[in-house]
Amino acid sequence: MALSNYEGYIASLKSMRPNIYKFDELITDVTTHPATRYTIEGHSKSFRLYDDPKEREILVTNSHLTGEPVSRYLSIIRGPEDMYANSRMKRRMFQLTGTCTGGRCVGWNALNAMFVATYDMDEKLGTEYHKRFLDWLKDAQSRDITIAGALTDPKGDRTKPPSQQEDPDMSLRIVERNNDGIVVRGAKVMICGVAASNEIFVLPGSGYKEEDKDYAVSFVIPRDMENLTIVETRRPSDTREQEEGFDIPNKEGGITQAYLFFENVFVPNERVFMAGEYQFSLKAVMNFIGPYRAAIGGCVAGQGDIKIGAAVLTARTNGLQSRIFSDRIIRMQINNETTYGMGIAAAALGKKHPSGAWLCDQLMSNVNKIHVATLPYETSRLAQDIAGGIGETGCMPSYKDFKSTKYGHLIEKYMKANSSAQARARAARLVEWATIGAGVPGCMHGGGSPDGAKLVIRSITDIEEKVEFARKLAGISEQIPEPEPRKK
Amino acid sequence: MALSNYEGYIASLKSMRPNIYKFDELITDVTTHPATRYTIEGHSKSFRLYDDPKEREILVTNSHLTGEPVSRYLSIIRGPEDMYANSRMKRRMFQLTGTCTGGRCVGWNALNAMFVATYDMDEKLGTEYHKRFLDWLKDAQSRDITIAGALTDPKGDRTKPPSQQEDPDMSLRIVERNNDGIVVRGAKVMICGVAASNEIFVLPGSGYKEEDKDYAVSFVIPRDMENLTIVETRRPSDTREQEEGFDIPNKEGGITQAYLFFENVFVPNERVFMAGEYQFSLKAVMNFIGPYRAAIGGCVAGQGDIKIGAAVLTARTNGLQSRIFSDRIIRMQINNETTYGMGIAAAALGKKHPSGAWLCDQLMSNVNKIHVATLPYETSRLAQDIAGGIGETGCMPSYKDFKSTKYGHLIEKYMKANSSAQARARAARLVEWATIGAGVPGCMHGGGSPDGAKLVIRSITDIEEKVEFARKLAGISEQIPEPEPRKK
Amino acid sequence: MALSNYEGYIASLKSMRPNIYKFDELITDVTTHPATRYTIEGHSKSFRLYDDPKEREILVTNSHLTGEPVSRYLSIIRGPEDMYANSRMKRRMFQLTGTCTGGRCVGWNALNAMFVATYDMDEKLGTEYHKRFLDWLKDAQSRDITIAGALTDPKGDRTKPPSQQEDPDMSLRIVERNNDGIVVRGAKVMICGVAASNEIFVLPGSGYKEEDKDYAVSFVIPRDMENLTIVETRRPSDTREQEEGFDIPNKEGGITQAYLFFENVFVPNERVFMAGEYQFSLKAVMNFIGPYRAAIGGCVAGQGDIKIGAAVLTARTNGLQSRIFSDRIIRMQINNETTYGMGIAAAALGKKHPSGAWLCDQLMSNVNKIHVATLPYETSRLAQDIAGGIGETGCMPSYKDFKSTKYGHLIEKYMKANSSAQARARAARLVEWATIGAGVPGCMHGGGSPDGAKLVIRSITDIEEKVEFARKLAGISEQIPEPEPRKK
Amino acid sequence: MALSNYEGYIASLKSMRPNIYKFDELITDVTTHPATRYTIEGHSKSFRLYDDPKEREILVTNSHLTGEPVSRYLSIIRGPEDMYANSRMKRRMFQLTGTCTGGRCVGWNALNAMFVATYDMDEKLGTEYHKRFLDWLKDAQSRDITIAGALTDPKGDRTKPPSQQEDPDMSLRIVERNNDGIVVRGAKVMICGVAASNEIFVLPGSGYKEEDKDYAVSFVIPRDMENLTIVETRRPSDTREQEEGFDIPNKEGGITQAYLFFENVFVPNERVFMAGEYQFSLKAVMNFIGPYRAAIGGCVAGQGDIKIGAAVLTARTNGLQSRIFSDRIIRMQINNETTYGMGIAAAALGKKHPSGAWLCDQLMSNVNKIHVATLPYETSRLAQDIAGGIGETGCMPSYKDFKSTKYGHLIEKYMKANSSAQARARAARLVEWATIGAGVPGCMHGGGSPDGAKLVIRSITDIEEKVEFARKLAGISEQIPEPEPRKK
Repeated sequence: MALSNYEGYIASLKSMRPNIYKFDELITDVTTHPATRYTIEGHSKSFRLYDDPKEREILVTNSHLTGEPVSRYLSIIRGPEDMYANSRMKRRMFQLTGTCTGGRCVGWNALNAMFVATYDMDEKLGTEYHKRFLDWLKDAQSRDITIAGALTDPKGDRTKPPSQQEDPDMSLRIVERNNDGIVVRGAKVMICGVAASNEIFVLPGSGYKEEDKDYAVSFVIPRDMENLTIVETRRPSDTREQEEGFDIPNKEGGITQAYLFFENVFVPNERVFMAGEYQFSLKAVMNFIGPYRAAIGGCVAGQGDIKIGAAVLTARTNGLQSRIFSDRIIRMQINNETTYGMGIAAAALGKKHPSGAWLCDQLMSNVNKIHVATLPYETSRLAQDIAGGIGETGCMPSYKDFKSTKYGHLIEKYMKANSSAQARARAARLVEWATIGAGVPGCMHGGGSPDGAKLVIRSITDIEEKVEFARKLAGISEQIPEPEPRKK
Repeated sequence: MALSNYEGYIASLKSMRPNIYKFDELITDVTTHPATRYTIEGHSKSFRLYDDPKEREILVTNSHLTGEPVSRYLSIIRGPEDMYANSRMKRRMFQLTGTCTGGRCVGWNALNAMFVATYDMDEKLGTEYHKRFLDWLKDAQSRDITIAGALTDPKGDRTKPPSQQEDPDMSLRIVERNNDGIVVRGAKVMICGVAASNEIFVLPGSGYKEEDKDYAVSFVIPRDMENLTIVETRRPSDTREQEEGFDIPNKEGGITQAYLFFENVFVPNERVFMAGEYQFSLKAVMNFIGPYRAAIGGCVAGQGDIKIGAAVLTARTNGLQSRIFSDRIIRMQINNETTYGMGIAAAALGKKHPSGAWLCDQLMSNVNKIHVATLPYETSRLAQDIAGGIGETGCMPSYKDFKSTKYGHLIEKYMKANSSAQARARAARLVEWATIGAGVPGCMHGGGSPDGAKLVIRSITDIEEKVEFARKLAGISEQIPEPEPRKK
Repeated sequence: MALSNYEGYIASLKSMRPNIYKFDELITDVTTHPATRYTIEGHSKSFRLYDDPKEREILVTNSHLTGEPVSRYLSIIRGPEDMYANSRMKRRMFQLTGTCTGGRCVGWNALNAMFVATYDMDEKLGTEYHKRFLDWLKDAQSRDITIAGALTDPKGDRTKPPSQQEDPDMSLRIVERNNDGIVVRGAKVMICGVAASNEIFVLPGSGYKEEDKDYAVSFVIPRDMENLTIVETRRPSDTREQEEGFDIPNKEGGITQAYLFFENVFVPNERVFMAGEYQFSLKAVMNFIGPYRAAIGGCVAGQGDIKIGAAVLTARTNGLQSRIFSDRIIRMQINNETTYGMGIAAAALGKKHPSGAWLCDQLMSNVNKIHVATLPYETSRLAQDIAGGIGETGCMPSYKDFKSTKYGHLIEKYMKANSSAQARARAARLVEWATIGAGVPGCMHGGGSPDGAKLVIRSITDIEEKVEFARKLAGISEQIPEPEPRKK
Repeated sequence: MALSNYEGYIASLKSMRPNIYKFDELITDVTTHPATRYTIEGHSKSFRLYDDPKEREILVTNSHLTGEPVSRYLSIIRGPEDMYANSRMKRRMFQLTGTCTGGRCVGWNALNAMFVATYDMDEKLGTEYHKRFLDWLKDAQSRDITIAGALTDPKGDRTKPPSQQEDPDMSLRIVERNNDGIVVRGAKVMICGVAASNEIFVLPGSGYKEEDKDYAVSFVIPRDMENLTIVETRRPSDTREQEEGFDIPNKEGGITQAYLFFENVFVPNERVFMAGEYQFSLKAVMNFIGPYRAAIGGCVAGQGDIKIGAAVLTARTNGLQSRIFSDRIIRMQINNETTYGMGIAAAALGKKHPSGAWLCDQLMSNVNKIHVATLPYETSRLAQDIAGGIGETGCMPSYKDFKSTKYGHLIEKYMKANSSAQARARAARLVEWATIGAGVPGCMHGGGSPDGAKLVIRSITDIEEKVEFARKLAGISEQIPEPEPRKK
């Protein structure tokens, strides 16, 4: 049986070795600790929903390896419909949790990237990575595990490649190879959803030359691997998660982003999918960003749905009709559907890879990345505009003050409007949470910076072809080459 | 044989009765008259390209009625790939002609709309419109005709419905019905590509009630029908088309937009596809705007490609490298791919209609309409920015001045830079033509206004669902209804 | 001597009765309590800088009442240069504190508004408010006090005026008048800088009719008045202020926003400046928003300066040159100077009031409000874009983790780049603080909503004049009246 | 008497030697020739309005040289109020003429620039330019002449400075110096309002080194100077100006932009204001762009007023209320007031030059240039949006068709709505004219490109100061220098 359930998921997390810290404290049980329980609650939705036929259709597909039903998060994207389903699933998860469940979706992107890369390596180099990968994947599907994806290296001084850094550990690297596997040292930073994950899928960086080949490394390991230390980052308003009450109104989801420190972690061969093949690391990264930058449009659309809902809800508690904000709601909706739609377009215009995978259109994916890095900011601004001052910076007394025996009744008296004071506060706190608080996912730089996307767009765009169109239409017969730069 | 060729197309136009006027002058041969020859040149591309296998793949498909190869402009959209092909074809035609070939593509939208509407009417009302329609379509395919689509009525006083106007002719209407057909009176205005068309496909307006039923009328007629008078509109810089030289640099394409006056035009029954079924007119219009507002993204992307090319070309003639404008080129490219991609998304998320047609997703289509009404303006501004002052308003002497025996040599001397003066002028004139001149298509209002698209977006968007998402996440149990408006 | 100093200011705050709460706890000393000390540090800058001649010129002017040097925050705006100085001072204070010092500037706006309103009331109604006001002002100047300004009422159900609310206390009102003064009940909400203030200047709301006259009330009281209870609101990441270390990197300034509950507060006559003159309440509010919406452009420009600085600083710690971000820095700078400049324009185009006050141009002020409600959001987005992922949501381990004996060394190792890890973290935390953290001032709704500003713009703009310009240029002689709305 | 009148102005133009060409034809009388009469009509407004006391106040000031009333266009800017008046005058002229009257305002900018530059040269170099300049100015004021300003050189290959061009004439230069004066050769291109001018004021370019010193030249000459040939450029829809009827609806104003060819033109010493002082040419240009980029905000605001008026007027003829477009009208108004206001701010923040001139703030002026290069495009788009399809590309039959005996009655019948057909056409043609037709002034590049403005903004902005603010607030003690670029 290839689908787990809520209880199984929680049990699997509880059984792991504690190796996650926050605020210099070891988190002994991630499922109950305030710093991690909300993100686990969010991730657990993907198991809870199996029982609802309508949701199941979104979340479950059949393994192309076994034919059995498996979580879509553990499936290989084999056609555009798989990508549409993926965008839909991500949007749905945001609608239900308010934020990111990166511990399923990034791992899923990572495994899809390496499905293709291992195939290509085996084809070109005669390696056996793809077979290894498939063995692991089949097993992962049967266990229905959650998997975080780890891409970003610390990098150190950005003016130098990994092998030229003063400290060679500034990108994750192989420090030892033996018959059974490899030993890696370094770090991966800003990794989403690790606390909610059973395993971590590590991808190589890109831009490597031969001298950097020890940095071209990909593998998957249990989250609680020996010599792996995980530190959770702190985000806006994150200590509210440790409090009672509604200052964090949403208990259905939450984010974590971690720094992973590898102090000579051993990875057995059967879990190693790249170990030195530097010429394939850029392709691996591109295979990652293709579907990632497409489907993230579903994520920000889903959160945009929540922003619309929370803003209108707050306006209603203020006694204001949504009709007043019609133009702004339409604009928010346009933003949502644009990122969602561009992701769909990237899928629709993709192409089949010999491995059987479906590769998204890179131009559309990377254009979408730019939209994802800009439109949600406008949507947030409009949500704050509609919600009013109490939404903008959450300008209200705290839950503790609401409960004050001295003056709580005054807050209740003066904050009521078209609803109770508490309902109004909860609605406005949700606007705050999603636009300037603990629910804001780092979508601008997540999966790479907008500048990186612009580079891809620029390199894909054939300007010369366009110049030729124009030259022909303008009836110009002479050649007009690109000028030399002005001499200084 | 269902594909015509350039000669056949030109001959078909030459053989028609002259009934088109401009500047109070009858155009006796549209293929040679300066006011119409460029648009016919543009339309003719769709025939000329049949011989190039790469282009043919874009332009030709197989009739689902006969299995024979037919122009895609005469085909029924039966799946998302047909729509992708359509977007690609429109973009291609803009790349090759610089502007709109509305006399093929709007007719194609119109016939697809009525394919569905006639099916629905027959199903619900027991009429025989669909059969009639198919007979006509088969014949049209076999003749490979060009067809303009006519949607917009003059409307008169917008505060009143058609039947309440002082002058009942302000929307096109049936004034007589007899055994053989119907007689119509009124006008259709701002109709694209009529001069290049063999036939005109008329669609009903929308928003009709029972008393407006004579206005619910759809049919197709030869362009040179008796009692039909056509007046071409004047556009920016259109008289340049009557001049020699390069002040209109592009001879590969051009637009026309006409006013059609129906003074009791008889339409035989076999060409009538709606005649009073007012309850289906809104659906017919929606069936039109679905694919129209999707694929128009390809149009403005194609013209955007020309704007990029012309701007970079002009900059090069000025001696400036494209690298300087990298950010602006990427922004233009993002605009292009966004309208293109959203059209693809509308197709990908569409659904099958019982008639076999594929209906585009209305939300995506209408969101795209808003992008089409805004992004090309930014692209134009950036093209002018890159091209410099000579592109912005075409700030150069005329062709006649270039040829002046008195001072033409001075213009040649002082306008040369990194190219000859003439090449520089041609490139800048193309920027002018595409951004502020005779090549600007009316895409903001073409196929309906952006305000109409916003209404559709607003009506499709389920705000209550989003409010419920938010209410659930915020943990609010009380009901918070939409407030009543403030009493004045 | 009319200028105080740091010690005097701190002593004045320490000597007040504790009546401010946060998290259900009474703050016994605002100058040392973590929830308020940073805002007091920020406000205290206005005293510390007296000793620096360059800064003193910005902060000090001469009283037009006594000729003595006084804080500009206690001066009357008598000409455009006073407003320029005001914009400059606000920008300077933001540059030095990173955020808002509302406990000086809003009070200053309030007293200027009532300087004019009391003059007008006395002129029209024969009251003696202006004299009272001047007596108080002279005394306030001599004490160099800090003054918060309180405008916003809770309002309750926005579909009803104050006097028609179920609970008549939903706007602050006079519940008793006697020979010595008035007694008020109600609340003022979202009031900035109260904790750092010696007194609170209360303004009336607007839109009042005769039946609402008890709500038309203005006065000034000591912050620690009997029966006044103050509850500080909670903002993003505010509990970090209670922690050690650099997770709030900025100790030079901070914001507070309070809810004020008036439970039958007595105000003696000499401090009452409006008590029932409902016909003057709208003008009082307009007198407030005129200079407020002008000079707030200086505030957001000053914070924009910090955003540019913090973003570039973070990029440098990442090893990236500012040249790469040139276009974005210019755009941020344009945003800064636009809000700053529009405020200057509002001042320059103002006019003299008979009282001697200078009234800013309302059209320019309100246009600026719209810019203030939008441009800083773009500036924030660009700051996050430049700073990278660690700035976007502050995606780094906490200070406590940096200090961990178990793994602090790993954080130091892997977060260093072109600077030490701590410097990098501090820079990125400042970006977070200013764009999505505890330093974000509520400028979108502060001093009224953007929608209110749009209403003012719409009402000031003479559209008919513009239509007449157009009608004349178009050579149209017939009248074209505004149409009636469409009948439904 | 220092103020002329309409008759005097027209007579002065009629008396000049014909040396202006368009379409290879010599214009013998600029006041009646269709290509130039509208711009002269527009310029003549500045004389006609002297009789209206309200307008006179805007247009007339007192000469600081003689104390007599003179045209503001011939005055020296000596304080911020002079600049405010200037912005107001420009806006007013656009409101009354619909477009640019460059033949007064650019000359006025040029003479102000050289008033300062000649002063500085005399101070530093002991020349006598300033005295010469004042003599000329006094005389010019007494004659109340119109003056075009000529700045832009052809430049040729932009990768090389003037003296390194293959053809040394690519920038205007001194080819001979003798006792009586200088002889110049070359061209000035894209010069506004020449046909309506009595004289032409030539400014040097910038970026000159010692070897370019013959290019550092400034002077003023009569427009009909020997050896000067002028060719008018062609703009969108300019041939309509040669037609009867309302296809150009506006007869109150128009633009011309000319290319000036200097074939060894002799300039007597008393009219030479720079001749080789290359070190002052950049300052001269900066003195030009300071007030130019400030006050041009008034120009585009004035045309924006017309766009609002024309759009609302067209909507009314369509039967639509302006209330429907409220948000868009407010946005257009915000755009108008932003460019207007930023110009006011540039003036208000200016400073006094030793010569007595008032120098605008360069930062504000150049920020405004960016707004002028972007906001009017949005205003145009919104005008087209409001006006509907007939405004977007002027999609209506021509005037000749309106007058057709064959079908003119049909056009009249079907184009009427809430007004006559002709009124509707005139209103829509005005939208077309101002947004995409013959009335569009080249404000994006006029007076220099936006890129140039960005360079100025970047060079004025002290980023290091902002970085220091941030470093101090973040509590960072270590130095963080700008990194070196990445080695390739």
